[in-house]
Amino acid sequence: MGAVVPLRESRSEPASIQNLVDLTGSGMEAVNQLILSKAGSNVDLIPEIARHLISSGGKRLRPMLTLAMADLFGYAGDGHVGLAASVEFMHTATLLHDDVVDESDMRRGKLAARKLWGNQASVLVGDYLLGQAFKMMVDVGSLEALRILASASAVIAEGEVMQLGAAQDIETTEERYMQVIEAKTAALFAAAAEVGPVLADAGDEARSAARDYGMALGLAFQLVDDALDYGGSASDLGKDIGDDLREGKITLPVILAIRRGEASDRAFWTRCLEDRDVREGDLAHAISIMTATGALADTVARARAFGDEARAALERLPAGPHREALGEAVDFCIARLS
Amino acid sequence: MGAVVPLRESRSEPASIQNLVDLTGSGMEAVNQLILSKAGSNVDLIPEIARHLISSGGKRLRPMLTLAMADLFGYAGDGHVGLAASVEFMHTATLLHDDVVDESDMRRGKLAARKLWGNQASVLVGDYLLGQAFKMMVDVGSLEALRILASASAVIAEGEVMQLGAAQDIETTEERYMQVIEAKTAALFAAAAEVGPVLADAGDEARSAARDYGMALGLAFQLVDDALDYGGSASDLGKDIGDDLREGKITLPVILAIRRGEASDRAFWTRCLEDRDVREGDLAHAISIMTATGALADTVARARAFGDEARAALERLPAGPHREALGEAVDFCIARLS
Repeated sequence: MGAVVPLRESRSEPASIQNLVDLTGSGMEAVNQLILSKAGSNVDLIPEIARHLISSGGKRLRPMLTLAMADLFGYAGDGHVGLAASVEFMHTATLLHDDVVDESDMRRGKLAARKLWGNQASVLVGDYLLGQAFKMMVDVGSLEALRILASASAVIAEGEVMQLGAAQDIETTEERYMQVIEAKTAALFAAAAEVGPVLADAGDEARSAARDYGMALGLAFQLVDDALDYGGSASDLGKDIGDDLREGKITLPVILAIRRGEASDRAFWTRCLEDRDVREGDLAHAISIMTATGALADTVARARAFGDEARAALERLPAGPHREALGEAVDFCIARLS
Repeated sequence: MGAVVPLRESRSEPASIQNLVDLTGSGMEAVNQLILSKAGSNVDLIPEIARHLISSGGKRLRPMLTLAMADLFGYAGDGHVGLAASVEFMHTATLLHDDVVDESDMRRGKLAARKLWGNQASVLVGDYLLGQAFKMMVDVGSLEALRILASASAVIAEGEVMQLGAAQDIETTEERYMQVIEAKTAALFAAAAEVGPVLADAGDEARSAARDYGMALGLAFQLVDDALDYGGSASDLGKDIGDDLREGKITLPVILAIRRGEASDRAFWTRCLEDRDVREGDLAHAISIMTATGALADTVARARAFGDEARAALERLPAGPHREALGEAVDFCIARLS
């Protein structure tokens, strides 16, 4: 029958990160200043591209995690501002390189940098931002935070390479998919959260709880993203729906749909994802298979389960307005579906 | 008349880096071990590509600088091994990204990684190596060395972006060219040399002398490279002669040839470098203009002058076999022309 998956749930109050935004407001102002100054360069193209991305309306969720986690532990210095800006630069560099690798045309509802300035500039400006990120970390002076963020940087790239290897291979397993999103997305959320208690010298249990929170939140975030690619609308998402299908990306909705679908669907998935031959009507057909097999609903359920894990990790942290706001951030990430 | 530039000078003894190789031998063995282990990953593609590059016979000049400079100041720890490996990883990451940006087909006489594994993998494996480089630096634990190498990382990318902006613009000035090669090449030589005395805690004057040596050596090295692109042979160089002409790169030989050449040559340079329309016989014609105008000879002379600067900087360092060997490295870089 193919009942429609209830991506839109009725809620009395829409989930919001407003409390997180308010609590980190003055810190984020300093982060934004630092970002703009460190995205500068005498080489004109660099600030041009960097500002295009930086001003294009990302939610800055990752740097807010760093600030909130440091504040939660009563950190009194200003190193969290530098680390938060570093985290955002690492993320921005990844976006620039991703768009080149994925041959994306759009990013956050705008033309991707590589369409405006070319692949070459996108690669090099990404490298520049990464270098600036590490310089900012050095300025903060915490070797332990540097270790966490440098590791994340290597792991992210590893995840992207893994994804490249899995792309266009419809035999990709669920386990491999989870490894990819843990590395390419969740590792940076985890690092962004963990450096907060590290700066505040809050001890191993605090670090580990903050890290677990970030990791679970990042996994939920990516699962939601991958569900939205088959269920959101382009204007909400700031990117074209169906991008993953066109790019041959093997995400959880696809893996579940292939595993549970009819044998006769395999030729369809092979043509779309391995042969990269996506035709008019294919996206609608993919969504109908995903709906019929419960692939989308179960991707969403998986995201909610990681959301629960993230909230459980928060329970191990000191109560207060910051913990409260970080809990709302979990709801917010998942509510992008609703 | 177009007299042939004496690129080949007769010498009684050919310049060699054998003494530098011998002095840093045991350290370089440790560096090579570390490089191989840190180029590993569970993601198959990463060690495959990394080893392709790492085993493809680079001279490892940069990490040898780090080892020799640390030894010269009697450094007794093993941090120089980690920093030397980091420097080589930074260099390797740059090569991977450069080949993508330049659309190069060959690297050190082998097919470029991007031709074997694609641009996407080259971008991402470069990112991975950069992340691993920073992790190794953190393991060494010197924030000051981290600062120097992180700065170099940003400056290199800045230089590459600057070069991209100058490419295909025959109005590029000599000053702009010098800025580009200082950033994209010499900055890493300078950083590789400077971290030696930093590790050994040898004081500001030692740092500054080591840095000046590396910077001047790097400038000489790049000038020689740019001259060789119009005067070496493909088999010596491991890359195709004439690459720079085909890629529209504005190097010193070109800048001098344009400035000193006939007005009637401008159309030729515009067609080759700005319109990227390089035809049969154009390389020979370019070389004949460069020879007639003394553009190649003066590029070589400029390289020699920076070689003299590098040797002068060495005079500010403690005498001994390491200083001796570093002096021979200057001759070696310039003797690639002979």
